[in-house]
Amino acid sequence: MKQPSGTKTEPLIYGVHAVSEAIRAGRRRVRKVYVARDRQPARREIITTLAGEAGIEVERLPVQALDAQVGHRRHQGVAAEVSAYPFVALEALLSDRDQPPFLLALDHIVDPQNFGAMARTAQCVGATGIIITKDRSAPPSPAVSKASAGAIEHMKVASITNMAATLQALKKEGVWIAGADRQGEVSLFEADLGGALALVIGGEEKGLRPLVKKQCDFIVAIPQIGPIGSLNASAAAAVLLYEAFRQRQKRVRTFEG
Amino acid sequence: MKQPSGTKTEPLIYGVHAVSEAIRAGRRRVRKVYVARDRQPARREIITTLAGEAGIEVERLPVQALDAQVGHRRHQGVAAEVSAYPFVALEALLSDRDQPPFLLALDHIVDPQNFGAMARTAQCVGATGIIITKDRSAPPSPAVSKASAGAIEHMKVASITNMAATLQALKKEGVWIAGADRQGEVSLFEADLGGALALVIGGEEKGLRPLVKKQCDFIVAIPQIGPIGSLNASAAAAVLLYEAFRQRQKRVRTFEG
Repeated sequence: MKQPSGTKTEPLIYGVHAVSEAIRAGRRRVRKVYVARDRQPARREIITTLAGEAGIEVERLPVQALDAQVGHRRHQGVAAEVSAYPFVALEALLSDRDQPPFLLALDHIVDPQNFGAMARTAQCVGATGIIITKDRSAPPSPAVSKASAGAIEHMKVASITNMAATLQALKKEGVWIAGADRQGEVSLFEADLGGALALVIGGEEKGLRPLVKKQCDFIVAIPQIGPIGSLNASAAAAVLLYEAFRQRQKRVRTFEG
Repeated sequence: MKQPSGTKTEPLIYGVHAVSEAIRAGRRRVRKVYVARDRQPARREIITTLAGEAGIEVERLPVQALDAQVGHRRHQGVAAEVSAYPFVALEALLSDRDQPPFLLALDHIVDPQNFGAMARTAQCVGATGIIITKDRSAPPSPAVSKASAGAIEHMKVASITNMAATLQALKKEGVWIAGADRQGEVSLFEADLGGALALVIGGEEKGLRPLVKKQCDFIVAIPQIGPIGSLNASAAAAVLLYEAFRQRQKRVRTFEG
């Protein structure tokens, strides 16, 4: 029996940036855009224009109807029925850029807010892709798309079953594996993060798992002072990604100059 | 007429770290600690022990009763009745450390999650204090205490009425004012953030206000590539704070060596 259209298999993304970036990225099929009729039309006009240019049907509806459709009110007056999130194969993260691989590997990050924030930062530093585990990681859900301000719609994400085996495979491709851990042996400020790199961030609760840690070429610690134990996972990722970005920029400059 | 005790004037903080750090910091009077009787006793034992050592009354209650007391379920089984958040005067941010002032000035940050995450990062880099505006900024609420993993319980926070006037006063004290803005004239990686410094972060929606910007000695831009406009406010703060920290560490090393 065929499933009726509009069932749970089709995600409903929401939020101004999530929807506009999904349309701009052009990686998902966007079946229909919903726009609430209400007080703040300016930002939603952008969506209507974008959808119009892409030939996507737009339905205007009362905000209460959109609340009911999405299941909550955190939609900023915009939602869209889209095809499933377009994962890529691991190989696609290594092959198609004019810079060495610059990857973020998330091992059991479960909070959609953290995943979204990390994807947004990864996008800002030009990371070539994100690796997540199929199990026990937050998937690239509508909540993640919103939290990432739509960055996840552009970012290449590979979903893998075994993180340790995946890191081993990346090492064979010449990628350096840097784990992040507060007990790391190298300070962030002294670590070499400029080459082909995968930064591995462990889950919010337990950090890097031993088998994953074992595959790391080195473990980076973010220097910290003060009585509180550790940075929030997405703040830690931001600091690591930007230090890697700084070193990469410097290399490019040195190379050019 | 006297107010009955336990009214809304006494904040009820919640979360394992928020409560334990409030007790450890010893800045608020902690009147009573509530601990849910339930399945995960290990972390709550720490609270019970801490409270016991500090002579604070502990009430054990069913988790549903705690839900009702706090008004939601994000309490991790722990809450505490505490005195109001202990703001400090601006002068206290300048006077009492053996390092030059290292301040974070938040101009209309409204999201408690962002404020909490920034306070946590500020604590990790040894910032000497945070400045917020009395109006239109998220106050250091219980939600902020939880989001900061208790960092706000240790951090010195000054609440001021006029950000532009405050920055002007700081300049007279020899503090350099660095605003963060994507249209900044200095790249983060080239800015001098090593001395007496106040980093100014604008609100999530509108960024730095013109009158505040005018008081900045320089405007720092965080380099970004890719199609998404800008970093999340707390990720931007993390990157800025850590670059300042890196430069300060280096200075200390150079000075010592």
